[in-house]
Amino acid sequence: MDNSIYFSKYEKYLKRVEDWLKQNFKVYECPEKVIYESMHYSLMAGGKRIRPVLSLAVAEMLSGDLDTVLPFACAIEMIHNYSLIHDDLPCMDDDDFRRGKPTNHKVFGEAIAVLAGDGLLNMAFETLLKEVARSHENSHLKAKAALLIAEAAGIKGMIGGQVLDMESENKTIGYDRLCDMHRKKTGALIKSSILAPAVLLGASSDTENALKIYADKIGLAFQIKDDILDYEGNSEIVGKPTGSDEKNRKSTFVTLLGMEEAKKLLEATVRQAKKVIEPFNNAEFLIKTAYYIAERDK
Amino acid sequence: MDNSIYFSKYEKYLKRVEDWLKQNFKVYECPEKVIYESMHYSLMAGGKRIRPVLSLAVAEMLSGDLDTVLPFACAIEMIHNYSLIHDDLPCMDDDDFRRGKPTNHKVFGEAIAVLAGDGLLNMAFETLLKEVARSHENSHLKAKAALLIAEAAGIKGMIGGQVLDMESENKTIGYDRLCDMHRKKTGALIKSSILAPAVLLGASSDTENALKIYADKIGLAFQIKDDILDYEGNSEIVGKPTGSDEKNRKSTFVTLLGMEEAKKLLEATVRQAKKVIEPFNNAEFLIKTAYYIAERDK
Repeated sequence: MDNSIYFSKYEKYLKRVEDWLKQNFKVYECPEKVIYESMHYSLMAGGKRIRPVLSLAVAEMLSGDLDTVLPFACAIEMIHNYSLIHDDLPCMDDDDFRRGKPTNHKVFGEAIAVLAGDGLLNMAFETLLKEVARSHENSHLKAKAALLIAEAAGIKGMIGGQVLDMESENKTIGYDRLCDMHRKKTGALIKSSILAPAVLLGASSDTENALKIYADKIGLAFQIKDDILDYEGNSEIVGKPTGSDEKNRKSTFVTLLGMEEAKKLLEATVRQAKKVIEPFNNAEFLIKTAYYIAERDK
Repeated sequence: MDNSIYFSKYEKYLKRVEDWLKQNFKVYECPEKVIYESMHYSLMAGGKRIRPVLSLAVAEMLSGDLDTVLPFACAIEMIHNYSLIHDDLPCMDDDDFRRGKPTNHKVFGEAIAVLAGDGLLNMAFETLLKEVARSHENSHLKAKAALLIAEAAGIKGMIGGQVLDMESENKTIGYDRLCDMHRKKTGALIKSSILAPAVLLGASSDTENALKIYADKIGLAFQIKDDILDYEGNSEIVGKPTGSDEKNRKSTFVTLLGMEEAKKLLEATVRQAKKVIEPFNNAEFLIKTAYYIAERDK
């Protein structure tokens, strides 16, 4: 798949996601309006939307209906955005910028930022439960997909990973611990964005297993690339200050392996992702996405 | 129903709740153990458990199976506890004590307290979705009940109410705005604890409507009593410093109506709750609970 076809497909998925979010999340005139504005500020700030885009791509590869998958894909995006708001708080990473804009608490204050994060997490589950409760048709598959997302976001997934990350600051951790941390902190939610559509569409267990490996590989690739960008990236393109890993004395793939080995591992990981997904019909977009993750400059 | 029968019934419900929580939430040995400990610290700190107790009482009044309702009741208790952890944060109410013990962030630090709150909210939805996904039997009713809880906890319910509360500090607000704030901040989740079992058990719309009014009334009574306790209560019995409303110049039922009128309103509200619920068979516990809410000293 050449670049122009890939990016036009990416744009197509992205537009579906943006349209769904716009239609389903509006700012209301009410005394508590500021919470809507604060959630809107973060949720509508753009970004790559890689998680929901992956969901739609998997759905299309499996010949599924994109409209069925969209609310699940967007719920995952809400969960991702809540986690960014809370991670950026002064008591957590204390970041002032995100995607080239002031972070949520810089604009709305800490209290509203905490509540906006809570609000987005809660809204994700309202979205999922609305889908499950909508009709009897496929409600069991919908419940299973929603549960899979909930578990990925929880303490055995993303939240646990964030704690591992905090516990690892200012100390040297080993490679296995680093992988475990990332598998939970970022990998779990990415994986859920790939597996939820497969569950929703009733895919075979062979298909699910292949997608699990693909998801693990691109999750790992995503994180190795993040670490590389924190060292080599241009902060204006990345949209946030680079060098923060070094400043916070974090163990990363770059500090543990060195830049050269980190890049080799990235390359090998992308190849493995490709290998497991290429037997599928119409896997070109997912293959290209693995490469895109490794080659992106932000 | 005399006091001793009432309290032994309350203890029976309470034990079911405590047992369920103990069985379903354990602290694991793992590098991220601190998040389990922090969630455990707040969730297992006791408290009245009025919400899940109400759920079980409604279930029993409707001759329903308590085991069906328990996970929903406990999910609501998780949501209640997450909201307490986040409300107590320095950037929110900045409270040092809760139920006579140091607040979560005082013990575990702010970052872990934010994540423990997130973890409990997420775990509530994992619990609900596990129930919905468990089997095909009644899964539609389960999904509807879970959605009702999610909406009560979200920005149109509890989170919106918390924002209204913050927006009302240091200014005088009217009676209607005060009621709207409490209906959302505490009323919505209490209401969900009463309605979720009715939905789960497939109650008639007449039953649901009566329970809605009962829930509104005891939610209001609960808040009026809270405001009275903040003025008249013994801080050692209440388990947190009293007089904070005055310190924070909050509009409350006491400041808006005066103590005498606030007490009259409390009495009238409890009578209305009784009136709507007494036509049901076996409503004694719920009637007594309305009175208990008005007479409690903590």
